[in-house]
Amino acid sequence: MGGTSMTDPTTDPATDPVVQTGAAPASGGATFTVTFQPSGRRGSAAAGTDLLSVSRGLGVEIESACGGKGTCKKCRVRIESAPESLSPPTDVERNALGAEGLAAGMRLACQSRIVGDVKVFVPETSRRTRQVVRKEAGKRTVPLAPAVKTYPVKLEVPTMRDATADAERLLSGLEVQHGLTGLEFDFPVLQTLPSACRDGSWDLVAIVWEDRKIVEVRAAADARPVLGLAVDVGTTTIAAYLCDLTTGAILTTESAMNPQVAFGDDLIARLHYVIHHEGGLQELQRTVMGEVNNLAAKAAATASAAVTDIFDVVMVGNTAMHHLLLGLDTRALGVAPFTPAIAGPVDTLASAVGLTFNLGCRLHVLPVEAGFVGADNVAVIIAEEPYKQDKVLLILDIGTNGELVLGNRERMLSTSCATGPAFEGSHVEFGMRAAPGAIERIRIDPKTLEMRFKVIGVEGWNTEHRPEEMGACGICGSGIIEAAGEMAKAKVILENGNMNPDLQSDRMIYEDGKPRKFVIARAEETALGRPITVGIKDIRSLQLAKAALRAGEEILLRRYGVEKPDGVVMAGAFGTYIGKHHALAIGMLPEIEPDIVTSVGNAAGDGARYALLNLEKRREAAWAARKTEFVELATDPDFLEEYVRAMNFHPEADIPED
Amino acid sequence: MGGTSMTDPTTDPATDPVVQTGAAPASGGATFTVTFQPSGRRGSAAAGTDLLSVSRGLGVEIESACGGKGTCKKCRVRIESAPESLSPPTDVERNALGAEGLAAGMRLACQSRIVGDVKVFVPETSRRTRQVVRKEAGKRTVPLAPAVKTYPVKLEVPTMRDATADAERLLSGLEVQHGLTGLEFDFPVLQTLPSACRDGSWDLVAIVWEDRKIVEVRAAADARPVLGLAVDVGTTTIAAYLCDLTTGAILTTESAMNPQVAFGDDLIARLHYVIHHEGGLQELQRTVMGEVNNLAAKAAATASAAVTDIFDVVMVGNTAMHHLLLGLDTRALGVAPFTPAIAGPVDTLASAVGLTFNLGCRLHVLPVEAGFVGADNVAVIIAEEPYKQDKVLLILDIGTNGELVLGNRERMLSTSCATGPAFEGSHVEFGMRAAPGAIERIRIDPKTLEMRFKVIGVEGWNTEHRPEEMGACGICGSGIIEAAGEMAKAKVILENGNMNPDLQSDRMIYEDGKPRKFVIARAEETALGRPITVGIKDIRSLQLAKAALRAGEEILLRRYGVEKPDGVVMAGAFGTYIGKHHALAIGMLPEIEPDIVTSVGNAAGDGARYALLNLEKRREAAWAARKTEFVELATDPDFLEEYVRAMNFHPEADIPED
Repeated sequence: MGGTSMTDPTTDPATDPVVQTGAAPASGGATFTVTFQPSGRRGSAAAGTDLLSVSRGLGVEIESACGGKGTCKKCRVRIESAPESLSPPTDVERNALGAEGLAAGMRLACQSRIVGDVKVFVPETSRRTRQVVRKEAGKRTVPLAPAVKTYPVKLEVPTMRDATADAERLLSGLEVQHGLTGLEFDFPVLQTLPSACRDGSWDLVAIVWEDRKIVEVRAAADARPVLGLAVDVGTTTIAAYLCDLTTGAILTTESAMNPQVAFGDDLIARLHYVIHHEGGLQELQRTVMGEVNNLAAKAAATASAAVTDIFDVVMVGNTAMHHLLLGLDTRALGVAPFTPAIAGPVDTLASAVGLTFNLGCRLHVLPVEAGFVGADNVAVIIAEEPYKQDKVLLILDIGTNGELVLGNRERMLSTSCATGPAFEGSHVEFGMRAAPGAIERIRIDPKTLEMRFKVIGVEGWNTEHRPEEMGACGICGSGIIEAAGEMAKAKVILENGNMNPDLQSDRMIYEDGKPRKFVIARAEETALGRPITVGIKDIRSLQLAKAALRAGEEILLRRYGVEKPDGVVMAGAFGTYIGKHHALAIGMLPEIEPDIVTSVGNAAGDGARYALLNLEKRREAAWAARKTEFVELATDPDFLEEYVRAMNFHPEADIPED
Repeated sequence: MGGTSMTDPTTDPATDPVVQTGAAPASGGATFTVTFQPSGRRGSAAAGTDLLSVSRGLGVEIESACGGKGTCKKCRVRIESAPESLSPPTDVERNALGAEGLAAGMRLACQSRIVGDVKVFVPETSRRTRQVVRKEAGKRTVPLAPAVKTYPVKLEVPTMRDATADAERLLSGLEVQHGLTGLEFDFPVLQTLPSACRDGSWDLVAIVWEDRKIVEVRAAADARPVLGLAVDVGTTTIAAYLCDLTTGAILTTESAMNPQVAFGDDLIARLHYVIHHEGGLQELQRTVMGEVNNLAAKAAATASAAVTDIFDVVMVGNTAMHHLLLGLDTRALGVAPFTPAIAGPVDTLASAVGLTFNLGCRLHVLPVEAGFVGADNVAVIIAEEPYKQDKVLLILDIGTNGELVLGNRERMLSTSCATGPAFEGSHVEFGMRAAPGAIERIRIDPKTLEMRFKVIGVEGWNTEHRPEEMGACGICGSGIIEAAGEMAKAKVILENGNMNPDLQSDRMIYEDGKPRKFVIARAEETALGRPITVGIKDIRSLQLAKAALRAGEEILLRRYGVEKPDGVVMAGAFGTYIGKHHALAIGMLPEIEPDIVTSVGNAAGDGARYALLNLEKRREAAWAARKTEFVELATDPDFLEEYVRAMNFHPEADIPED
C-alpha cells in the first residue's frame, strides 16, 4: 500500500504519519514529496499513488463526486512542477480537459499518479466547500459559496504568433482553468487590464461576481484579502459584520446608532421629513451611508485591512430603511396602500449608494415582502429556515414594529403589528434605551412586595448595594416588561391593567385619591433625585403593544389552522434581553411551555451574513419573500376581538428565581 | 365582402377606398370606424371584419407569420375602446394571452372581429419592422431593430387588495403586454420609479436596452424623442449621425476635426504622448469625448432635441482611437506584438467615458480585429457585407493606414498597410488637407504638356480663370495622385518614378543639372508667390504608399487563391475624392476594369449607423471580427518582392476627360 506522511506548515512538522487509501503500487518503491497550494500542505507518498488519495491523506479538500472514477471531472488541479512528475494524461483526462486544458497544466487528481516530486495547485472551484458556522456554535452551518469569488489564472505571454487581446486571453484562461463561460468585465477593469496583466507577469487572480462579472484582476502575488460586509440597518442601530470571503470567517463586528435618528426617532417621522424637505431623501441616504462607511473603516482597521478590500456588501433593513438606504423614492410608502418601489432583491454597485469601498464592490439588498415586512424580516427567515422544518415555528422580531412569521415547509405567513415603541422603553414615563443606568431586571416578592432590581452597569441586585450606589436613570424595554409581569403576579395591577386599589404599600403613589404609580426605585436609588415609577399610563402603553403583538400571533395561528406553534423564536435585541418567562407572564406569547421558546440574537444580521457568504441563500431569500403570505391585520375581521381579549393580564406563568 | 376606406391623418382624407381581404360577413351589414394607434390611421370597415385584415387595408403594419390562423401569436394588439367593440376572445386568444393579457386589453388582431367603433394600439413588438435605407437610396436596407426600444405599457392603480410594488407591477405589465421577461432595472430608474408611475398616471412608456435593462420610465404622454448617435472617430475627423430610434431616420449629421491632433498628427505620436505624460490617456479621452459632446449638442439643437434625448451611442474607430476613446490602457498597443486590451465589442454606460447624454444612455463600441485593423474596419465590413456575397470583394479603407479586406461568404482576409500619410497630402512638399486652396484635380495634355487644375473653393478649371483668381495654397491627397497619374501618362516621370531627363518643358525645374520638380501651378496662380510643384521626393513618398497598398492587395489575393477581385470598393473620404481611373493609373489597384470599382463614401460611418439601428448588425460585427483572418504582412515571405514590384508606374489605364 502507498503511504503518506504529512506536514502541516502551520503546526509541528513531526506529526503523525497518515495511513491512506487509494491505489497501491508495488511496496518498497520510491517515495516523492507532494505539495498542495494554496494550503501549503506537504507530505511524502509512494510512487504511483494518485493525487486524490494523497490529498485525502493530507487533509487537503478536493471535490470528488464519483469516487475517483474520472466521471465527475470535479477534481481538476493544476500541476506546477514539471509535467513528468505525474503519469501521462489518460484518455479520461484528455476528454475532460481538452488539449488546451492539458497545455495549461490541468489534470484530474484521481487520474494522475505521482512519478516524481510534485507541486499541485487546487483551484477554488475544486476545493470542497467550507462551512460557515453561526456565532452560537453548532446551531447552523452554511456552505461557503459567496457571490464574489477569486480565481487564480496563469496565462501565456503574448507573441507575434499569438497576439490575442488581453481580455480574450484572460477569458480563455478562466474557461480552460476554471470552466467559467460567458464572463463580462466591469468597464474600469478593462481600462487597466493591460497593466494588470503585465505587472502581474501573467500570473493573475481574477475576482469575479456571481461567476458573471470580472470586478478586478490583480497579480497572484498580491496578498491583499478579499472581504465582504454584511449590514443590518435598523431604525435605531446599525450592525456591520466584516467577513473574509475566501474563508468565511467573521473578522470583526461593529455597531453604531443609526444617525438618521436626528431626523426622527421613528420611521414615520423620517418619511415625513423626506416629503417636506427638498433633497431630504438624498440627505437621509447620505447620513446612513456615511455611518456604514465609518463602521466599515473601523472594522477594516481592526482587521488590518482597507475598505478597498471590500468587494461585496449585503444589506438588510425594514422597508423604510431599505428605501432610505437605496435612495428609493418613498413617496408611496407612507400612504395607503403603502406600495414599495420594488419588492425583489436589488443588485447594484456599492458606489451607487455612496459606499466608498473597492471600485468594483457590489451591493445586494435582500427583498422585502410588503410595505411593513422588510428585508430584515426576510433575513430572519433565511437565518431560521422555517421552510426547511416540519415544526410550525413562530418567529418574532420585535422593535418599533413587531414582525411575525408563522410557518414551516408547507406554508409561511407573516404580518406586522404596530406595537409602538413601548417595548423599546419609549412612551413610558421613565423609559430609556438599554444603556448604563437603565433598570433592566425587576423582581417583586408577591407576599412582602419587597423590590429587587438590576441596573445596567452595576453588578448584582440593588439589595447587594447601598442605595446611592445604584444611580438608576430610567427603565429600558426589558425592565418595563419585567415590571409589568412582576406587578401582575404580585397583584399590584389587576387583570385589566388598573392599579389595585386594595393594595397596601408605601410604594404606591396616589393622585386624586386613586392609585396611579408604583415606585420601582426609591429617590435615593436614582440619579434623578426622585423615585422611578411604573404608572398606569406606562402599563397602558405596554398593554396596547403586547395586545397588538398577541392579536397578530393569534390571527396568524388561526389562518394557519393550528392552535399553538411547535416552537417560538425570539429574534433581535428584544428577544435577547427579555426573559421568556416574563414575556409569557404578560401574555405577549401564546400559552405555551417556556422550554419551546428560544432567543437567537440578531437573526437579521445572521441572515445578512449568510447571504453574503452563500449565493444560494440570496436565491432562498428571493423565493421566501415571494412565498411568504402577508396577512394584513387592519382588514382582518377577527383582529379587534383578539386585540381586546389580549389586553388583559393573566399571570399564570411561573417565573423562576435567578 | 367587408370593405375598408382609409384616412391617413397626414394626407388628404379623401384618398382611395381600399379593397381588402379577410373573412366576409353578410353584405349590407353595418360599418364601423377603426383607428390604429400610434400611427393614427383610421378607416371604416364592415362589421365582422377581423382587425388584421382591416390593418392591411389601411397600410398599418402588424406582424403576422401564420396568415391569420392564430398560431404565430405575433399580431398582439391592445384595445383602447370598450371591450364590447370587438367579438369576445376566442379560445386561441385565451391560450395565447392568458387571463392577465386579456384583462389588460390585449387581443390577437387576426382573431378579433369588429362589432363597434374600435380604437386599437399596435405595440412596437407587433409592428412589422421598418427598413433603414442607406444614404445612397436603394443601395442597401437594414431592418429597424435598435438595441434601445420603447414599450408603451398601461398599469392598474395599486390598491390595498393589490399593493404589488411598482417595479414588479411594471415588469408584469411589460411581460403581459409585450412578452418581455427577465428584465432588470438600471438602478437610477428604480430610485425615481414611484414618481414616474404616479406622475404618468400609470400610462407609461418604458425605454429598454437589448430587451434586458429598463433605462427609463416616463409618462406615455411625454413627447420627447428617443434618439441614438452613431460616431466614426477617425484619426483626423469625427463624424456623428443623430438618428431617431423609433423611425430609423437620420435627423442630422455633424463632423469636426479630431481635437487630438493637438497631441500629434498620427497615432504613433499620440500613443507616445500617453506613455510620456502622467494622465495623458485620460487627457486624450477627455479631448475626443469633449468634441463628441459638442457634435451631439449641435446635432440635437438642429433637430430641436436635447442631448438628454440620446439613449444609445455606437462608436467606431481604428484600434488606437478605440483605446483612446474608451480610456483603455494603450501600454501594449504601441510595441510588438501590438496586443489590444480587448478585441470583442464593448458595452458600457455612455457616462463611463464622459458622454453627457441621458443618464441611462448606452455605449456600444464595435469589435476590433487586431492591433492595426480596428472597429472602423469592422464597421466597413458590416456596411459592405462581403460575407453575404458570392463575388470576391476587395474593400479599401485608406487613411493614414490602408486597411484592406478581401473575401466573400466563404472566407474573409484582412490586413493593414503602413501607407504613410502621402495619400492624405502629408510628407509632400506642397501637401495639405482637402481644404479651400488645395489643388484637387489635375490634367496634363500628354502631347502639349498643357496643364489644367482645379482648386477647392474655385469654380471650374484654371483655364477658365485669370491666373490670380486661382490662389492655390497646396495639393491635397487626391491632387497628388492625379498629378502622379498624369505625370506618368505624359511621361514627365518614368516607370521607376524618376523625372524624365529628356523632357522639354519650362515647367521642369533642375537642381545640380538634374530634373527634380515639375510645376503644377505657376507662381502667379498661387497664394504663395512661388510655384507649386510635385517633385521627385513627393513621387517617392507616393510610390512607397501605393506600393505598400498594392503589395498588401496582392498578398491577400494570393492567400485567398484568386488572381483578381470581382469587385473593388473604395471606402472613406479617400475613396470618394480619388478618381478610380487615376488610382488604376498609378497602380494602386490590381489590373481590373474600372467599372467594377465603386466608391461608397464613409462606409465606417454607415456601419456604425446600421449597428445603432439594428442589434443583429452588432452580432454580425462580433462574428465578422472573429471570422476575418488577419494577415500579417511584415512576416509574409512574399511581401518584399511584391512591394518592390509595385513601386513602378505602368500607366496603361485610360483616363477619361471630364
